[in-house]
Parts: sequence; structure tokens; C-alpha cells
Amino acid sequence: MSNNKTSYTDIRVRYAETDAMGVVHHANYYVYFERAREDLIESFGISYFDMENDGVMTPVVETQCKYISPARYGDTITVKTSMDKLTPVKFEISYEVYRKSDNTLLAKGKTLMAFTDKNIFSPVSLKKFRPAMWEKFNI
Amino acid sequence: MSNNKTSYTDIRVRYAETDAMGVVHHANYYVYFERAREDLIESFGISYFDMENDGVMTPVVETQCKYISPARYGDTITVKTSMDKLTPVKFEISYEVYRKSDNTLLAKGKTLMAFTDKNIFSPVSLKKFRPAMWEKFNI
Amino acid sequence: MSNNKTSYTDIRVRYAETDAMGVVHHANYYVYFERAREDLIESFGISYFDMENDGVMTPVVETQCKYISPARYGDTITVKTSMDKLTPVKFEISYEVYRKSDNTLLAKGKTLMAFTDKNIFSPVSLKKFRPAMWEKFNI
Amino acid sequence: MSNNKTSYTDIRVRYAETDAMGVVHHANYYVYFERAREDLIESFGISYFDMENDGVMTPVVETQCKYISPARYGDTITVKTSMDKLTPVKFEISYEVYRKSDNTLLAKGKTLMAFTDKNIFSPVSLKKFRPAMWEKFNI
Repeated sequence: MSNNKTSYTDIRVRYAETDAMGVVHHANYYVYFERAREDLIESFGISYFDMENDGVMTPVVETQCKYISPARYGDTITVKTSMDKLTPVKFEISYEVYRKSDNTLLAKGKTLMAFTDKNIFSPVSLKKFRPAMWEKFNI
Repeated sequence: MSNNKTSYTDIRVRYAETDAMGVVHHANYYVYFERAREDLIESFGISYFDMENDGVMTPVVETQCKYISPARYGDTITVKTSMDKLTPVKFEISYEVYRKSDNTLLAKGKTLMAFTDKNIFSPVSLKKFRPAMWEKFNI
Repeated sequence: MSNNKTSYTDIRVRYAETDAMGVVHHANYYVYFERAREDLIESFGISYFDMENDGVMTPVVETQCKYISPARYGDTITVKTSMDKLTPVKFEISYEVYRKSDNTLLAKGKTLMAFTDKNIFSPVSLKKFRPAMWEKFNI
Repeated sequence: MSNNKTSYTDIRVRYAETDAMGVVHHANYYVYFERAREDLIESFGISYFDMENDGVMTPVVETQCKYISPARYGDTITVKTSMDKLTPVKFEISYEVYRKSDNTLLAKGKTLMAFTDKNIFSPVSLKKFRPAMWEKFNI
């Protein structure tokens, strides 16, 4: 099962996201990843919002990030987001964060999400639980 | 209906709460207030957690804060929290934030909360909706 | 001294900004206001980023907000931002937050900012400290 | 060069840290790690605050976390924090997050930090740059 779709999301750094070092606090990259992930998912014709309404949540079960050069206030970043792995129970997405103005690579990360039945907060096979949604993930 | 209980909550400033000015970002004072509010409510023998389990939420309907002197990384702050007004449908709490080390007043704020039926997200009279909880608020 | 400029900023609610009530946490409206404020200031031909580079910070000295109806995940909000008062030492901005899809008013707020010399973190008269910047605020 | 010191930090989950899934948002674990890291560093007789005053910053250059079971509002968590690797230029810290009430393992993570000259925001050998501080790290 493979899927090479890639999306690009521009995000303007917010002042509240910086810290006393004068750079974006490292935890906020995961918030950027989440925002970028929405765009990737939507490129499949699925919205996070619709997924939740349809009883599917995709909690994050693993995260990792390497910070290469700091993003700062005044920067707009571009997150390049790609589906790396997809199985009926999990999917892994990778992210590259660039400063938009000069295309410098700032960070690289990955997150692993589990398809989950919202009502019981338990992992499920999306293929069995919501076949129509599973189809869209595999277009 | 009056209630003058006051509680004190110490909070250590987190690095993530600072911004590029080198001070605590102004929005985070409302997170401190929320944390301090828990302690005041618990001094009545009620926990926020139990309230939600009992079907009562208290969403914030108004907030205000004056910032007098900045809190910084390395500071521990003390929040003095007082019940200002209490009616069956709303309650107002006021906050004073001090730097613990030298007792400097850093900020003063207020928040207004509405007693709300969790299931329908609508305001209720706590007196009618949960009389036993209402009693505790009035001890 | 008056200035009636108004700007509009669309912001898509992030999952990380919601809380366990299923709505946007009240403190995050101040982060939205800050983002919207940038756009208003930029409509004067000034960027926050340039201001800081020119030695001027504008720390927030007062905030207030009334929450009328909750923003939720899946919502895009529009912040209508207006300069209410402007003096050489302070300026007050007001905000109205609407749900973009149906134009429902969700929240109304105000923030007061003080012109501040970045190097000494002290209030200044912008008119004397940076006359050229002051001119732009008054166009 | 080895150092097996371990510290324990209790953190009460804040409402603002939860998201619409009703659990602590995954990005906030890194904020918990940062808070816990302070305690480990302080067990060496060094404070983050003093480090910055002495011209040393320790920006995070890699982060990772596995989420095993969600923390929720009402939980107090205990973070067990250990120094895993220490070289003159970098150090790695690992974290285990437990629910305090029943000792359930909720998450495991690691972060890698680089000793950095605050004034030029460049990596340094702490051993050469601040020998006295380096000694404390190696007690």
C-alpha cells in the first residue's frame, strides 16, 4: 500500500510561539506539523473535521523532530508534508520545514498516527471500520 | 450571596511560556488564572474534575487583565485568587499575581464563568441543576 | 488624534487550540488578537518585525475579552481589528471575532499596548523616540 | 563520560493543555519534558536560569516521544528524567511519564540539547567555554 502525495503549507510564525531565546519554541513545530497534516489529508478529499464526525480520530502515537536552524518571529515557514507509510491501522507522515524567504531547511520531523474509534478511544482497522474513508486514503 | 474565600497558588514560570521579549507572553496569565482557580474551587470541597463528571462545566465568558510588571523565566509567581461574585448562574473570580521572591505585584485580572449543563452546552442555574454543588459554593 | 483603520484577518482554528470542552480555549483568543494586530499595523506600512529592529516594542498592558459563542475545530474565524485610541505613549485596539461560515459573532475584545524602548524595556513617547514611525501610525 | 542521575517531577495537567479529544495534546509532553529537565539539571547544582546568565543556552536539537496511554485533565503525572549521554558539546536526556495515581506508563521520550554560546547562538564545547559548569555536569 503506498501513497506519495505531498502537500505544502505556509505558516506565519506567531509572536506567542517564540520563546526567550528569540526563536520558535521547539514544541510548536508539532503544532505546525498538525496544521500541515490537515492539508495533506484534505488533498485526499478527507477533512479531519469530517473524520471526527464520522467517528474516527487519529491520535498521534509517535513524534520526532530534528531542529536544524531556528525559525524566528518575522519568518513565514513552508511545511512540505508527505505520506510515508499507510496501513489499515496506522499512518506515518514526514515533514520538512523551510524558511520561505530563502528556502533554508529549518527542521525535519515524523509523526505516526493510529486510526481510532472515537467512541471507545481504541485502535481500529480503518479498512474494516470505515471502508469508504480507507478508499480515499488509498487513491 | 457572598463568599470571601481566598486561595494562593505558586506557579513556576516555564520556558515555553516566555516569548521573544524575554518575558511571559500575556496570554499565559489566563492559563495561570485557570490553574489558580482550580485551587480556589477545591478549597470549597469541589474539584473541576468532579464538576465535569457531574455534568457541570464552567466556561469562561469574560476575561480581563492588567499587566503591571513582567514575569520572566526563573520567576516563581504566587497567584492570590478570590471569589468576587457568586450567583446561581455565574461567578466572578479576581486574581493578583506576585513575584514570589520579592512580592512585587505583576498583574491583576478577573474572569467571569457561567454554570453550564455539559451535555447541551447551555447556561443553567446551578441552584436548581445541582443543589448539592451549589451548597458547597456557598459554605 | 484619531485613526479609524480597520483590518480583517482569517484564522483557521488549530486542533491544539481546542480544549477538553471541545471548543477553543479562551486564552487562545489573545493569540488570535495578536496575529490580527499584526495585519492592522502592517496596513499602516509598519511591521512588528521592523518595529523591533528599530528598537520599539509594544508590550500588552491590558487585555479584555467577552466570549459570546465558542469557536470549534473546523471553524475558520475572521477577526475584525480596529484602532480605537492612539496617543504618543499607548494605543488601544478592539477586535471582533466572527465565524467565517455564517458570520456569527463569537467574541469581542480589546488590548492596550505601550510604546516601549526595547533596550531598557521602558515606556516612551513614540512621537519623540521614533518620529518617522509615529507619522506612519497617524496617516 | 557517564552520568546516571535521575530526577522525578510531578506535574498537574492543566485544562489548557487538553484538546478536543479530551486528552493532553501531544505537543505539550515536550513542555512537560522541559519542566522536568530543569529539575534534573538543578540536581547537578546548576539552574537553567544561571546558565543563561552565564552565557550558555541549551537549545533542543532533537526530540522524540512515544505516546502509550493518554494523560487527561484531573491527572497528575510524574516525569522520571535521566541523563543518557553527555559530551562536551551535547547531552541527551530521556523521560518516562507516569500517571501518578496508578503508576501507568503514559509516554516515553528523549531530547538532545546542544551547549550553545548565547551571544552568537553557536554550538560550543562547554568543557572549554565554561569549565566550572562542565565540572558540575560531571559530578
